[in-house]
Amino acid sequence: MSHENKMALAIHGGAGTISKKDMTPEKERAYKDGLELAVIEGWKILEEGGTALDAVIRSTVVLEDNPLFNAGKGSVFTNQGTHEMDAALMDGKTLKAGCAAGISTVKNPILLANKIMLHSRHVLLAYGGAEEFAGRMNLEFADSEYFYTEFRYKKLLEAREKGLNKNTPDKAMGTVGAAACDREGNLAAATSTGGMTNKKPGRIGDTPIIGAGTYANNNTCAVSCTGDGEYIIRAVLAYDVSCLMEYKGLTLTEACKTALKKFGDMGGDGGLIAVDKFGNIEMPFNSAGMYRSSICTGEKIKSEIF
Amino acid sequence: MSHENKMALAIHGGAGTISKKDMTPEKERAYKDGLELAVIEGWKILEEGGTALDAVIRSTVVLEDNPLFNAGKGSVFTNQGTHEMDAALMDGKTLKAGCAAGISTVKNPILLANKIMLHSRHVLLAYGGAEEFAGRMNLEFADSEYFYTEFRYKKLLEAREKGLNKNTPDKAMGTVGAAACDREGNLAAATSTGGMTNKKPGRIGDTPIIGAGTYANNNTCAVSCTGDGEYIIRAVLAYDVSCLMEYKGLTLTEACKTALKKFGDMGGDGGLIAVDKFGNIEMPFNSAGMYRSSICTGEKIKSEIF
Repeated sequence: MSHENKMALAIHGGAGTISKKDMTPEKERAYKDGLELAVIEGWKILEEGGTALDAVIRSTVVLEDNPLFNAGKGSVFTNQGTHEMDAALMDGKTLKAGCAAGISTVKNPILLANKIMLHSRHVLLAYGGAEEFAGRMNLEFADSEYFYTEFRYKKLLEAREKGLNKNTPDKAMGTVGAAACDREGNLAAATSTGGMTNKKPGRIGDTPIIGAGTYANNNTCAVSCTGDGEYIIRAVLAYDVSCLMEYKGLTLTEACKTALKKFGDMGGDGGLIAVDKFGNIEMPFNSAGMYRSSICTGEKIKSEIF
Repeated sequence: MSHENKMALAIHGGAGTISKKDMTPEKERAYKDGLELAVIEGWKILEEGGTALDAVIRSTVVLEDNPLFNAGKGSVFTNQGTHEMDAALMDGKTLKAGCAAGISTVKNPILLANKIMLHSRHVLLAYGGAEEFAGRMNLEFADSEYFYTEFRYKKLLEAREKGLNKNTPDKAMGTVGAAACDREGNLAAATSTGGMTNKKPGRIGDTPIIGAGTYANNNTCAVSCTGDGEYIIRAVLAYDVSCLMEYKGLTLTEACKTALKKFGDMGGDGGLIAVDKFGNIEMPFNSAGMYRSSICTGEKIKSEIF
């Protein structure tokens, strides 16, 4: 098999939210099942000759629909008891991108990002304007009951009580994302998040920002990040991996390691998944854990948390 | 004089909005006077030993207060006859940043970006949440009367009539920005904009996005971009200049040229201003014109449009 034909799909379900001591075997199984379902669904698309773009969208939708992950249905609550979700998608072949920020009522924000990429003259739409666009695109909406999960609501109450607003072991760094390389060597990346528990309204993190949480370029790599959003923005983390490959000639492995080290030196905590055009996969993190799963041609699914 | 001591300040007032044939000598003088006032005010701060950060803020405030430029007072109208302004600020010494998007009522969005950098745990605040934060910071607010300029309102009416929503010679690519190097060799960049005439609500452009419209890093350069925001986002233009210097070892001149070429090859139209730690200045653009002005140690102010 030639390199050009090696396909790869990597996904993450967030970094740093769970400590080893809180992780029961049952919980671990549930998370891994959720991750594997998402990988299997995306992989089917690649195996059937579909595009990297369609695969990352599909995997991300499956993660958004799973209440265990902080995106879509499982999104955390803002300070005001509402939801503000962000998502981004980038096509490495065309360098086209679609991003949505501050979404409250769209069931799958990654599908909105896709519609923005395909049908809007803008790259990033936010809040009311984004929701209005979603309506015109006939996307499925969901009410606050759909986004209510008891577990997340308790986290909000706890956070409010403790006045949590900084880095703490409990901080919600949940994000989901996918990066893929298809049969043609095309790359794509997707990221979606419910943001931070107890966050102030109006905060936009790294997820919907091209170059920060999400980036894809057929010449280099596809990347989706998770972790301290503010540090990811300031480190321009996803594009940093790409630039280290393009301008410094590093391999995917070296580029990921170097970019994550710089991000960590700034004080950032988190991780990223990345795929290159040869079907190589990297999933480094400097946080306590990162929910992650991957598959590539000739290999079985691998899912890990720590 | 050693290299370390050479100071530099560059500003822009947007790219591509004015064609040579519409430019009367009076108009040209008015724009250049506006630019020069902004440069002089920022330069005073540098000469008195102030920081690059304070200098770029000051120059940007002067441009925001000038109705000729599309930022602050002179901001263009959205599709709905409202204003949605964006601004960003980055400190090259600390890599800290503050960004505001979708601002309607704050007189000087760049001052809000500064408050976000200094006093928020977030990097990017948008819409209501950002305005609420501005209130807590005791920033000056302004009503819609302040932001009304007859010239801009006429542009909206014209745009509505023509159904302008794409790249046209009339498109508003107005943005203002500043990049500086101070006596200590610290770099900073600031950008502020009123967005696009007749834009749909909720569109966020490149200006408030670190890496896209704005970036500063003492190791490389400070950059502020103007032009097609969607292309600037996809090209991660400001950080691209920095990466070309850091990872490829290019000079500021070569890095600006290379990054702008890539951006142009994607289809992007616009320009950027950039300053490095040696006090070098670059102000390239591929659009019809770019309002720009600069000064550095030992040289006089230079102001140009075409």
